[in-house]
Amino acid sequence: MATQGQFITCKAAVAWEANKPLVIEDVQVAPPQAGEVRVKILFTALCHTDAYTWSGKDPEGLFPCILGHEAAGIVESVGEGVTEVQTGDHVIPCYQAECRECKLCKSGKTNLCGKVRAATGVGIMMNDRKTRFSIKGKPIYHFMGTSTFSQYTVVHDVSVAKIDPTAPLEKVCLLGCGVPTGLGAVWNTAKVEAGSIVAIFGLGTIGLAVAEGAKAAGASRIIGIDIDTKKFDRAKDFGVTEFVNPKEHDKPIQQLLIDLTDGGVDYSFECIGNVSVMRAALECCHKGWGTSVIVGVAASGQEISTRPFQLVTGRVWKGTAFGGFKSRSQVPLLVDKYMKKEIKIDEYITHKLTLAEMNEAFDLLHEGSCLRCVLDMQVQG
Amino acid sequence: MATQGQFITCKAAVAWEANKPLVIEDVQVAPPQAGEVRVKILFTALCHTDAYTWSGKDPEGLFPCILGHEAAGIVESVGEGVTEVQTGDHVIPCYQAECRECKLCKSGKTNLCGKVRAATGVGIMMNDRKTRFSIKGKPIYHFMGTSTFSQYTVVHDVSVAKIDPTAPLEKVCLLGCGVPTGLGAVWNTAKVEAGSIVAIFGLGTIGLAVAEGAKAAGASRIIGIDIDTKKFDRAKDFGVTEFVNPKEHDKPIQQLLIDLTDGGVDYSFECIGNVSVMRAALECCHKGWGTSVIVGVAASGQEISTRPFQLVTGRVWKGTAFGGFKSRSQVPLLVDKYMKKEIKIDEYITHKLTLAEMNEAFDLLHEGSCLRCVLDMQVQG
Ligand SMILES: NC(=O)c1ccc[n+]([C@@H]2O[C@H](COP(=O)([O-])OP(=O)(O)OC[C@H]3O[C@@H](n4cnc5c(N)ncnc54)[C@H](O)[C@@H]3O)[C@@H](O)[C@H]2O)c1
Ligand SMILES: NC(=O)c1ccc[n+]([C@@H]2O[C@H](COP(=O)([O-])OP(=O)(O)OC[C@H]3O[C@@H](n4cnc5c(N)ncnc54)[C@H](O)[C@@H]3O)[C@@H](O)[C@H]2O)c1
Ligand SMILES: [Zn+2]
Ligand SMILES: [Zn+2]
Ligand SMILES: [Zn+2]
Ligand SMILES: [Zn+2]
Repeated sequence: MATQGQFITCKAAVAWEANKPLVIEDVQVAPPQAGEVRVKILFTALCHTDAYTWSGKDPEGLFPCILGHEAAGIVESVGEGVTEVQTGDHVIPCYQAECRECKLCKSGKTNLCGKVRAATGVGIMMNDRKTRFSIKGKPIYHFMGTSTFSQYTVVHDVSVAKIDPTAPLEKVCLLGCGVPTGLGAVWNTAKVEAGSIVAIFGLGTIGLAVAEGAKAAGASRIIGIDIDTKKFDRAKDFGVTEFVNPKEHDKPIQQLLIDLTDGGVDYSFECIGNVSVMRAALECCHKGWGTSVIVGVAASGQEISTRPFQLVTGRVWKGTAFGGFKSRSQVPLLVDKYMKKEIKIDEYITHKLTLAEMNEAFDLLHEGSCLRCVLDMQVQG
Repeated sequence: MATQGQFITCKAAVAWEANKPLVIEDVQVAPPQAGEVRVKILFTALCHTDAYTWSGKDPEGLFPCILGHEAAGIVESVGEGVTEVQTGDHVIPCYQAECRECKLCKSGKTNLCGKVRAATGVGIMMNDRKTRFSIKGKPIYHFMGTSTFSQYTVVHDVSVAKIDPTAPLEKVCLLGCGVPTGLGAVWNTAKVEAGSIVAIFGLGTIGLAVAEGAKAAGASRIIGIDIDTKKFDRAKDFGVTEFVNPKEHDKPIQQLLIDLTDGGVDYSFECIGNVSVMRAALECCHKGWGTSVIVGVAASGQEISTRPFQLVTGRVWKGTAFGGFKSRSQVPLLVDKYMKKEIKIDEYITHKLTLAEMNEAFDLLHEGSCLRCVLDMQVQG
């Protein structure tokens, strides 16, 4: 291919500084080095983590950077030593790497991988501890090891999942973050059994994917909790069987749920990122076995708390990152499940825009009507 | 037996009010009603929960009462409908009941039983919601459904475990609380696997029983943490392989343990009742899988806290009550294990006194040298 080994100049949405509109720029993307893969991004969605870092509230956020981590594309070229993908492969970049070699990967107990974390955490590539993005020689930081708000990006080979080439990229891009997070929170982290009573706090994409996962697991009751009543209609299609708006009740939400369920729920999921809701989610669990999973990401510095008696009497407090899925191994299987119509994706896509409309897409994130907005990255107008 | 159906007058240590020395009194013990068992207590040990309620800090503490919950004795008589024990049976009173019929017992997921909780929580018997203890007609409250600081006590039939009559009661009384709590925290709640790295915060009876359980489970490293260096020598005999005194280090204890263990421990146990140690115990766990179990009981109103990121990155926070053992079913099996020399008991008994020396026994609880003090209840001098 003509571009192999060359710098590529392409369009990317650059976050120059916190809380300022992104700017569509011509960016130079360096060729992949050893263990790296350059990917042409065809479609990307937005997730709250992008907005959080963009807002400046993330103390680890680095600017200027190229955000984005929920996407799909095609391998343009690979660096030295890359064996698992090659030019032309259809791929999903994975912010959660999987090297299969580090202590964490080999433990068999977690999907968190330690291999490239020290580099991706500070916006650079591991090989030379530099960035592959630049504008007129000025380096632009990577984000979460993915930076999918660019027409071309460079990722570590441990951070890219090769998928079925017949899968529609404008759909399966959602398997880069939100949908697997919710499904996996139920299937891998909580391991919800048939007949369970489940409570879901927050009915955005993550909460709806939790509902979908809980329904598939055979939950007998799926109680959706949201302060925005507009969320309830849509949530029915994802499996939610009952709704509670905490604003319509005087009782604390945990007490209300305990009363509704003869002692508490079997599993609860916090899908908002609010530490006081995290507490309520734990405390609405049934004594003796109720398990609460934190999925939402709270603002930096915030803390969760409860009385230790809640745990001594048998409740369990957990959390999940990327739903516990091993990215390179399991994202392709989720694509297959979508192709066999075993999991939804289309229903989470409420808006479609283009790269040029990136800032509008950010605005949509804060609108109740939007679940996922997918951007066509190759259309610039 | 001459006493059956009669009031028995016997000696008991009565807590008339919080924080005042117990008084050895002549107490009238009513005959057992339907579903109740009257037990002659031969030996009782003291536990921190007794001292906590006695101190007045327990908002649910009721006075006057008869404390005590770690004991062994012989059934004197049974009330109507009691089928599982009879006069002469050797038994251990169980503060954690097991009815085998309630939602909790039938769940198969917890050892907490709901059957008599509403009565034992307020110091009375379920049948007539009255007490069986009185002094000159004045009712004296029960405590934890056991009240073993009396030569005779009345318990619900769901709160008494029938054990091997050849087992020495002056030893197996310890199976009423502390030793099973520690062993079970490891075996039932954490389910520690062979090869695991374990951290134990607090090396009193509970912490040492955790060490014993972890050694039996095949833990590769058992790190004991205590602010009292005198605890370290004895702890070796229970399986602790390394010691850390947080006072001898500047680093926070969680960081110290992470450094000592290449990323954190697999399992940690808080056996003190200190909420800031509970946080450290969680935070010293390995990312991805480390599990922390709260065993210590914190003072009322105190709260635990941490950053939710600790859980989102894979740590699990749990707690345990009576080590997750089902009392009536499993205490007899623990007695058998002791008889087969599979678990220690003798080594936890550092002091032996008599009922008359109850207040000295309370003083001993706060001395570093004392693990368990066993009182001979039938010797009054
Ligand atoms: N752990 C992970 O790996 C992971 C991955 C992706 C996203 N997340 C996090 O998951 C969270 C949810 O993401 P999303 O895309 O679904 O967000 P979203 O904003 O679309 O949905 C949040 C929902 O919560 C509701 N809500 C807000 N405050 C509430 C309250 N006090 N009580 C009840 N409902 C309330 C909102 O009305 C909204 O419907 C975010 O914090 C995101 O950062 C975590
Ligand atoms: N969950 C349950 O079912 C259950 C059952 C029985 C007892 N308990 C609780 O377990 C706890 C321990 O009981 P025990 O009988 O072993 O108590 P103990 O007082 O004999 O032992 C506590 C140990 O912790 C050490 N310690 C105190 N502060 C410390 C600190 N900041 N850092 C490190 N070490 C510290 C002390 O030196 C002591 O060795 C108590 O809170 C008790 O109420 C719980
Ligand atoms: Zn995301
Ligand atoms: Zn790895
Ligand atoms: Zn106790
Ligand atoms: Zn029961």
